[in-house]
Amino acid sequence: MNVAETRLCLLLHSIPDLDDSSLARLLVHFGSPRALWESRPEEWQSLGLPGRALRSLARARQRGGGDPAIDTGAQLRVLASVGALVLPLTDPRYPPLLRTIHDPPPLLYVRGDHTVLKQAQLAVVGSRNASAAGLRAAATLAGQAARAGLSVCSGLALGIDGAAHRGALAAGGTSVAVLATGIDRIYPARHARLASELAQSGCLVSEFPPGVPPLRQHFPRRNRVISGLSLGVLLVEAALPSGSLITAGTALEQGREVFAMPWSVFHKGGAGCLRLIRDGARVVESLEDILVELGPLYQAQQALHGLDLPGPRANSEPGEQDEGLLGLVGFEAVSADELAQASGRPLAEVLAKLSVLELQGSVARCPGGYIRL
Amino acid sequence: MNVAETRLCLLLHSIPDLDDSSLARLLVHFGSPRALWESRPEEWQSLGLPGRALRSLARARQRGGGDPAIDTGAQLRVLASVGALVLPLTDPRYPPLLRTIHDPPPLLYVRGDHTVLKQAQLAVVGSRNASAAGLRAAATLAGQAARAGLSVCSGLALGIDGAAHRGALAAGGTSVAVLATGIDRIYPARHARLASELAQSGCLVSEFPPGVPPLRQHFPRRNRVISGLSLGVLLVEAALPSGSLITAGTALEQGREVFAMPWSVFHKGGAGCLRLIRDGARVVESLEDILVELGPLYQAQQALHGLDLPGPRANSEPGEQDEGLLGLVGFEAVSADELAQASGRPLAEVLAKLSVLELQGSVARCPGGYIRL
Repeated sequence: MNVAETRLCLLLHSIPDLDDSSLARLLVHFGSPRALWESRPEEWQSLGLPGRALRSLARARQRGGGDPAIDTGAQLRVLASVGALVLPLTDPRYPPLLRTIHDPPPLLYVRGDHTVLKQAQLAVVGSRNASAAGLRAAATLAGQAARAGLSVCSGLALGIDGAAHRGALAAGGTSVAVLATGIDRIYPARHARLASELAQSGCLVSEFPPGVPPLRQHFPRRNRVISGLSLGVLLVEAALPSGSLITAGTALEQGREVFAMPWSVFHKGGAGCLRLIRDGARVVESLEDILVELGPLYQAQQALHGLDLPGPRANSEPGEQDEGLLGLVGFEAVSADELAQASGRPLAEVLAKLSVLELQGSVARCPGGYIRL
Repeated sequence: MNVAETRLCLLLHSIPDLDDSSLARLLVHFGSPRALWESRPEEWQSLGLPGRALRSLARARQRGGGDPAIDTGAQLRVLASVGALVLPLTDPRYPPLLRTIHDPPPLLYVRGDHTVLKQAQLAVVGSRNASAAGLRAAATLAGQAARAGLSVCSGLALGIDGAAHRGALAAGGTSVAVLATGIDRIYPARHARLASELAQSGCLVSEFPPGVPPLRQHFPRRNRVISGLSLGVLLVEAALPSGSLITAGTALEQGREVFAMPWSVFHKGGAGCLRLIRDGARVVESLEDILVELGPLYQAQQALHGLDLPGPRANSEPGEQDEGLLGLVGFEAVSADELAQASGRPLAEVLAKLSVLELQGSVARCPGGYIRL
């Protein structure tokens, strides 16, 4: 994307009454920011958008630019200074799963490696005031997910979010932080260094224009992007009420899998997880509980949206048991039942391990069972 | 039941090859131990029972008594010394829910107040090696259940079982202990005093003849009686594997509700509960989670089997909130929806509280909603 296009995106995002939903629909209708900008107002009518939004867009075009109060030049410099780019909804690099939600951000500001957005993401979220056990669980599961080839998506908050990002990075994996601020602002400030690391081994994304400070009302909106980017959402630890439950709620609306770690009723910090489990979230005791669900989902999404799934990480260490099972999968299809019999292990365990191997790219599902890759 | 009948029960139970299943079917067929004893062997044929069992019964009758090795006189004296009676499956005092399982004990030895067996029971079970939190939860929930008018059924084991019995008794409620030994033996010995208290404010029951020591193979059989006596089974705390999971399994087979308290994955002692939750057990955070399920079940069972449900205990203290809701229920039917609207509380909460009030006998369900009693 060249400077002119970035400037046009910033300009579209600065038109006072052009709300995100209208901008998204216009972009999808015309196919690109440029085509939208060069379209005739008569063509806008059929979309049934608010008159105010269209009048605002028309005024901006007559002026040949955005609101005079918005200095796209200054915003461009800000984006350049943090090395961020803008992905309009119509850009082929825009994350495919996020595009499918009912209210996708029309523009996504991205800092770091935008290709990570095409990887299969697992959202790992939870309380800011997490327990030691919760932090450990978040880091461990995120690291395991990263080793299994999933990117870990979270909100850069203190507590569980930070532990999840760090766990993924420490395992040599990638991670995506979705910000509730402009892409040039880091909140909380003490996560500045973590944000830099994420920009190296993943990316930061924001749907808000540069300069937007952390505003209370933006956090729930941000949460829908976390779940929208992800195949599933894992709630590690959360009290009641909790912003993380909003992420779980949007995940359900978006048709994503929802997972929760169980906690004792004596741990008030886990009450949000229990609520979610009672409402039908899957109980997660280990990463396999997640992989066994996401495996088939990943297949379907890959077929639809062309998600990337990297092979196992360099520092991935498949357990001996997985090697054992892998040894039983050859170049002719073998069924899970046969593998269970041959390995002498329960079918559920074999299916879980096959999902891991599948996500790692070591085996593939085919008619009649699984084959070695 | 007079001495002759008790002696006849002991005698039937002592016939060497007459297994419990055959004895149960003979009793049901003939309607009483006496009618069975006085029946003609030709009448036994149509039941398709094992020939060995019938030959053994015939031999015993020819001798006019049981196996010469069995001294029913001594057994009678043992029963008298502990104040126990025998309830054959055909006795109207035999617990009605237990009668419905596919393998009910043909004879039940009971010590204490046998009328408690007609109360609605909640089984509260779990590990012998329980944590402090688990013991506290067992005692608290059992006490609350007792105050809500449920009798608490368990296995007199160390750990959760003992805490559950004690919690029910401390709340002024009743409790039933199902033994894996003869009714005259108490296992473990250190629960001798608890057993005496249970005989005062509840009862001890056993399906094994007097004198039977604690045998490993009898514990799973005992567990099916715990669940068979109860409307539902609550697993408070259990590791993997656990005998308590057998009770949960028999509960499912018997169509009973299964409840489990959630635990963190870091607490290995709770892994059995998590397994159960993953397998579909209801997550219990408070007694209301149980009452909301057992309320309707209790209604149905009461209609079928005439279970007794005592009113609220003398030391029962309905919460202020319940009083508030109760104040809205009058002598004309009011629906749960209307109550939710009038009280400004969520429908789920109102339904839960109504179940409590229903179990306490303060309101009754009727066409169109609930009325005050």
